[in-house]
Amino acid sequence: MELLKRSIAAIQPLNENVYEQANERLANQARPAGSLGMLEAVSARLAAIFGTLDVRLTHKVIITCAGDHGVTEEGVSLFPQEVTPQMVFNFVNGGASINVLGKHAGARVIAADLGVNFDFDPSLPIFHKKVAKGTANLARVPAMTREQAEQSVAAGIEIVNELIAEGPLEMLGTGDMGIGNTTPSSAVIAAFSGIAVDKLTGRGTGIGDAALANKIRVIEQALALHRPDPKDPMDVLAKVGGFEIGGLAGLVIGAAAAGIPVVCDGLIATAGALIACELAPAAKAYLFASHRSVEVGHRFMHERLDVAPLLDLQFRLGEGTGAAIAMELLDAATRILCDIKTFEEVAIADAQKK
Amino acid sequence: MELLKRSIAAIQPLNENVYEQANERLANQARPAGSLGMLEAVSARLAAIFGTLDVRLTHKVIITCAGDHGVTEEGVSLFPQEVTPQMVFNFVNGGASINVLGKHAGARVIAADLGVNFDFDPSLPIFHKKVAKGTANLARVPAMTREQAEQSVAAGIEIVNELIAEGPLEMLGTGDMGIGNTTPSSAVIAAFSGIAVDKLTGRGTGIGDAALANKIRVIEQALALHRPDPKDPMDVLAKVGGFEIGGLAGLVIGAAAAGIPVVCDGLIATAGALIACELAPAAKAYLFASHRSVEVGHRFMHERLDVAPLLDLQFRLGEGTGAAIAMELLDAATRILCDIKTFEEVAIADAQKK
Repeated sequence: MELLKRSIAAIQPLNENVYEQANERLANQARPAGSLGMLEAVSARLAAIFGTLDVRLTHKVIITCAGDHGVTEEGVSLFPQEVTPQMVFNFVNGGASINVLGKHAGARVIAADLGVNFDFDPSLPIFHKKVAKGTANLARVPAMTREQAEQSVAAGIEIVNELIAEGPLEMLGTGDMGIGNTTPSSAVIAAFSGIAVDKLTGRGTGIGDAALANKIRVIEQALALHRPDPKDPMDVLAKVGGFEIGGLAGLVIGAAAAGIPVVCDGLIATAGALIACELAPAAKAYLFASHRSVEVGHRFMHERLDVAPLLDLQFRLGEGTGAAIAMELLDAATRILCDIKTFEEVAIADAQKK
Repeated sequence: MELLKRSIAAIQPLNENVYEQANERLANQARPAGSLGMLEAVSARLAAIFGTLDVRLTHKVIITCAGDHGVTEEGVSLFPQEVTPQMVFNFVNGGASINVLGKHAGARVIAADLGVNFDFDPSLPIFHKKVAKGTANLARVPAMTREQAEQSVAAGIEIVNELIAEGPLEMLGTGDMGIGNTTPSSAVIAAFSGIAVDKLTGRGTGIGDAALANKIRVIEQALALHRPDPKDPMDVLAKVGGFEIGGLAGLVIGAAAAGIPVVCDGLIATAGALIACELAPAAKAYLFASHRSVEVGHRFMHERLDVAPLLDLQFRLGEGTGAAIAMELLDAATRILCDIKTFEEVAIADAQKK
């Protein structure tokens, strides 16, 4: 808990002077005011995070947090738990979706084991932060203990701190892997918002109608049984969350504490971001929502976070794939602010040519 | 008309075998089927255009077609006509929004004069395709003659052919510059769709309520006066269009004829794409809609074209800015198809390691 407390206390407000300078420059560029829409707000916020109008997002990392879920016993996913470690190997081998899209975005992709039900060799180039080999089945018992919840969040913070110790880092992306993890994610937003479970539960990897009805029932049962306290985010994480969700929350808090922008991916990564911002509202200034996924619960998370996702490409993959695509937009946003000439600069350039 | 006819006749259907192979590969990748949403459809179509699963969009060009509009006499824009040539100089000097976003997307940006009310020096590095120094005021007389409309479309095709003669080209983006040009663009979609003008007319560069009411009146008056024939796209272009809109239509037809994908930008570029696809429905297979702009008429164009824009970033700038951003997504889409491993490839890689 010490690391979490210290990290939350370390989160600084953004540089308001630079934020105002950025907005002034954007308004004076040789184009209709506001005409670059959402990218203008992104560019001004990035400037305020870094305290400069000339932001360079050179060093980008995407952390794909993996964990397993006891609730898969209830038949909530199309795939068996074995797929989680298989996909971790796929990430390490560079053949997964996030490797391809991360490379395209110029980001390093590193997997992190927060709670996969598999013994990875310690030499495997991932972050080894296993809390336990999968959560308990939240349909029957709390997913984890409060201590485990705290450990998973601390692990996310540690990952950021270890990355920073290694070298420069200007942008963090968060992604997930974990068979069954849309179930705890939907449970998390249901616990915080009080919205009916059937309104925010989706088909995950693509389950049919009967399995969806069962998934809704499982989440309703878990909430009725454990009564997670929406005013106590660590209680929500412990009772109906997941180890990778805790890690994803820690990544957001760790990045915010270090003054690094963090772009979150889909339903699971955003569940983590939500827990982070419930624990540490100041972290939200560093958070960018990459996309709105097909998973219906995602929009309720964005609403509660009061953030507007940049993309809606009908993704429902996770791994950090939406974050990777959005990183390219964030990168473009930094160039908008810095490189588009103002009316004054254009006039000066014209005058100098004469 | 010969060039137009020849170009339309040259448009080939896409490679169906490769399209099927692409969709099969996408469905077998180690991720839930369909989980990369819109990018999957993009990647399969790009594969079918190029006849290979390994598409490389190395050489990208954005053409920003500029023209002036007699209708500015009616007070439909915040800016005076003088801004059109000023912005052409800004494009040449590299300080405009499209230069910055084009560079970020790895695309060359070249301006084209289709009808700017200014005598550019012939040595200026732009495409010199001036039809006339601005259209006539469509509120009173047809914007141009039918011959001028044909000339503007032919000019767009010539630009593509000249680009191809210069060297390899794998992706064309289309953008616009022209003070007053949301007025003819809204008139074009109104003429084709028959939808009420007040439903598809927006604020352009940011006009107020009174100016918007006047703009709607101007478009209604033009349509009532000239009665453009929706079954005759060249008639629509001539009576209520613009020279750059004709050029933008020609770019789409020229690209399709050459088997090159073309990504169109906002309201004006899409008005051109609409005229192209009304003239040559086969061109649509090569067309990608980059984004949905704030301009309300844009969605009606996409509906008529039956295309789904990739982005909605609340842009309302033009120049090709949305096309530039979308090019990065199209580029990512090519990597999705080619580089993400299938379940079989992952299994083979595992087996080889043992």
